[in-house]
Amino acid sequence: MSLTIKLHISNHPNFLAQPKIHQNPTKILPKYIYQTNPLRPIVLNHTKMSSISSQSKRVIKSSLIDPDGGSLIDLVVPENERNLRVSEAESLPKIRLTKIDLEWVHVLSEGWASPLKGFMRENEYLQSLHFNSLRLADGSFVNMSLPIVLAIDDKAKDDIGSSPNVALVAPNGDLVAILRSIEIYKHNKEERIARTWGTTAPGLPYVEEVITPAGNWLIGGELEVLKEIKYNDGLDQYRISPKELRKEFDRREADAVFAFQLRNPVHNGHALLMNDTRQRLLDMGYKNPILLLHPLGGFTKADDVPLDVRMEQHSKVLEDGVLDPETTVVAIFPSPMHYAGPTEVQWHAKARINAGANFYIVGRDPAGMGHPTEKRDLYDPDHGKKVLSMAPGLEKLNILPFRVAAYDTMAKKMSFFDPSRAKDFLFISGTKMRSFARTGENPPDGFMCPGGWKVLVNYYASLQEGESKQPATVSA
Amino acid sequence: MSLTIKLHISNHPNFLAQPKIHQNPTKILPKYIYQTNPLRPIVLNHTKMSSISSQSKRVIKSSLIDPDGGSLIDLVVPENERNLRVSEAESLPKIRLTKIDLEWVHVLSEGWASPLKGFMRENEYLQSLHFNSLRLADGSFVNMSLPIVLAIDDKAKDDIGSSPNVALVAPNGDLVAILRSIEIYKHNKEERIARTWGTTAPGLPYVEEVITPAGNWLIGGELEVLKEIKYNDGLDQYRISPKELRKEFDRREADAVFAFQLRNPVHNGHALLMNDTRQRLLDMGYKNPILLLHPLGGFTKADDVPLDVRMEQHSKVLEDGVLDPETTVVAIFPSPMHYAGPTEVQWHAKARINAGANFYIVGRDPAGMGHPTEKRDLYDPDHGKKVLSMAPGLEKLNILPFRVAAYDTMAKKMSFFDPSRAKDFLFISGTKMRSFARTGENPPDGFMCPGGWKVLVNYYASLQEGESKQPATVSA
Repeated sequence: MSLTIKLHISNHPNFLAQPKIHQNPTKILPKYIYQTNPLRPIVLNHTKMSSISSQSKRVIKSSLIDPDGGSLIDLVVPENERNLRVSEAESLPKIRLTKIDLEWVHVLSEGWASPLKGFMRENEYLQSLHFNSLRLADGSFVNMSLPIVLAIDDKAKDDIGSSPNVALVAPNGDLVAILRSIEIYKHNKEERIARTWGTTAPGLPYVEEVITPAGNWLIGGELEVLKEIKYNDGLDQYRISPKELRKEFDRREADAVFAFQLRNPVHNGHALLMNDTRQRLLDMGYKNPILLLHPLGGFTKADDVPLDVRMEQHSKVLEDGVLDPETTVVAIFPSPMHYAGPTEVQWHAKARINAGANFYIVGRDPAGMGHPTEKRDLYDPDHGKKVLSMAPGLEKLNILPFRVAAYDTMAKKMSFFDPSRAKDFLFISGTKMRSFARTGENPPDGFMCPGGWKVLVNYYASLQEGESKQPATVSA
Repeated sequence: MSLTIKLHISNHPNFLAQPKIHQNPTKILPKYIYQTNPLRPIVLNHTKMSSISSQSKRVIKSSLIDPDGGSLIDLVVPENERNLRVSEAESLPKIRLTKIDLEWVHVLSEGWASPLKGFMRENEYLQSLHFNSLRLADGSFVNMSLPIVLAIDDKAKDDIGSSPNVALVAPNGDLVAILRSIEIYKHNKEERIARTWGTTAPGLPYVEEVITPAGNWLIGGELEVLKEIKYNDGLDQYRISPKELRKEFDRREADAVFAFQLRNPVHNGHALLMNDTRQRLLDMGYKNPILLLHPLGGFTKADDVPLDVRMEQHSKVLEDGVLDPETTVVAIFPSPMHYAGPTEVQWHAKARINAGANFYIVGRDPAGMGHPTEKRDLYDPDHGKKVLSMAPGLEKLNILPFRVAAYDTMAKKMSFFDPSRAKDFLFISGTKMRSFARTGENPPDGFMCPGGWKVLVNYYASLQEGESKQPATVSA
């Protein structure tokens, strides 16, 4: 493995000098870097760093990792063109967006899906469905595992007629964007579902919420977003764009950024893992690894903990000192959730490349759930990390596999699972945790910081107070 | 487009001189070369030819196109090692193959699936399912759209125990092969079906015949085939391996090989298309384009015309002079048929690269069929050629789209469809053709050569004579 890394670095056109941290690569390489697939060596991306240090420059650039396609896409219309575009939008045929369509407009507008410049055209849709990747003009691939598409029904299609451009309208009636040079093509829902989820069983949350009620056409084109998407829910300050995140990593002089995707409260097992990852990056020679704690903020299924509660819980985790605010950035990832396992985890990783993360932590069964109609996991729990390690377009991202943490009944805290004394460990699933919080029962000491736990208990108590506080199906 | 081609050729490391046939590229490029996807220019593969001609060598190599992975895989044990291997196989745990498993052993043994060296391991299976391609050690991709896997049940898995190697046994009890360094992993049938076919609807022929009855485990490993697979059905002389096909193209001094995949009788529309393709290749400057007429010989669905009848029909087409035997090679492609549309057509094209074809003709709805439970095509008829033009690993193959041929009632022959006089054309589907032959009704004059038609009529008459002559579900 050390040989592979040297080879890749020395082959890189930006290579100028062997970085210090590689002086003894056989010693500093972490054993926990995942590499079961011999076809895909994990490459540490220090080329930019090394060229900078060798040139004795003082400024650490945000470009620890290039955005997909080379530059970050920003689809928001410049301030000085806004009025003109709004007038134009008013004159165009209009498409009414759902709340989740609007989340995708948000995702696209800030370049999380770079190099996509709008909702997918058919050639992008087909590449995404069949190859989970897009080929660029230079022959290289970027990852693109989820179709990012906009569905319309027959009536909307008729209303558009032969107009080359359309306006997109938010659920509240606000004009949101122009979609240009549109292309309308068939929405074969069955095929989309089968190829994305690997099942067509009824009960998939995103399918039931989004796809089944959607129209039989997809409309692609270039997107021009009239102004930044805001939710006015008290959480907008956490909705930090990839561009702003890259600036923040610069400001902190990060020399490594490791992203942690989550849609659950943070317990001490997660914290152990994140702190351990940071230590290992320090051991590898990085001076200032920054954690991007990155809860998903778009659509989630009804029994997930809502975003506002999770954000409050995450705040407590930092307040209680379980994670270090100095080396942690908490921000919201605005994407809706598909629960599409190995297919979706690629999207989660790819979007974090665009936000400047060059390390990605992957756990057991990422983006997985129980099979909706059978008594088993929908996906093999190991497939997520395996597929991630093989995925076209993710070669430049370092994949860090989750070490399994569980409650250690001897040490009375969360520890990495030790198979030699398996009976000492208690696995507390998300379902189990929610059930504790719902019934008011305390989890074992050391499972979660008290401040964070209180947030959850209060949330479930508020649910029981009355129907009016039921969690919304769409959490953001 | 001419610019793109020049660019690609001049960038190629093997480029030595501009070949003659490119002296006026804007004039000689055929208009019917398919290129709707701007991301993927079609590149004409003359680099090998040009370097040969510029070096004034006399021998035309078979390597008009390199096999996937660089060298053609051959898994048949050398004669002098056979006895040793047979003795070893006798001592190993045994897996009983189905007829279709044996067809895959045949496919693998001759290198149609190069660079695969045996039934897929899990990392190959996952790449095939999710990316329709395999990443090689050098970072490049080869296409691999269908999982080529061997299923076993719980009992077979138990019987194998901890043996690293197993013997494969034909349905008739013959020892066929050794599978080495085996890896056993879960066979999630639902996911495999959904990701391969884009549907899980009941009634998919390959699923019903092969996957549903199969075991819940897959076994991968390196294959050593004890001797060439033979069927002793009178058609073995047509089962020409990729290695032998490449030799034959050399012998004929082919400077282009265009493959035509089919599983139906050849009518005059097909012949028009193939002859037209040859003429266009001549117009492009090729001196000796050879047609590989390549009927699929493995599993086909019950109502397809069986292989022996099709081979007889194809012989008549050549005898009657509809196709020119001097410039045509007829051979059997030993693969089973999946009827998996855009996913399968990639396999059909990829396998022909390994057989030495550098042009591939693709039609409307390749490998498609009606949806098994709904009144519509299972696949969008245009998706096959679109997906083929985008597929990772097929960049080196030139894709030639089918021009639609139909019966021209004015000219009383098959002609290319002319939309300006659409009403003059009669479309005769495979189903319609079979219905004509079954009822003894003659198709319009000029639809098929009389010798070929007679073969079909006789076949359907023989079916009606009695149950004993019903077509087998498995045609080869």
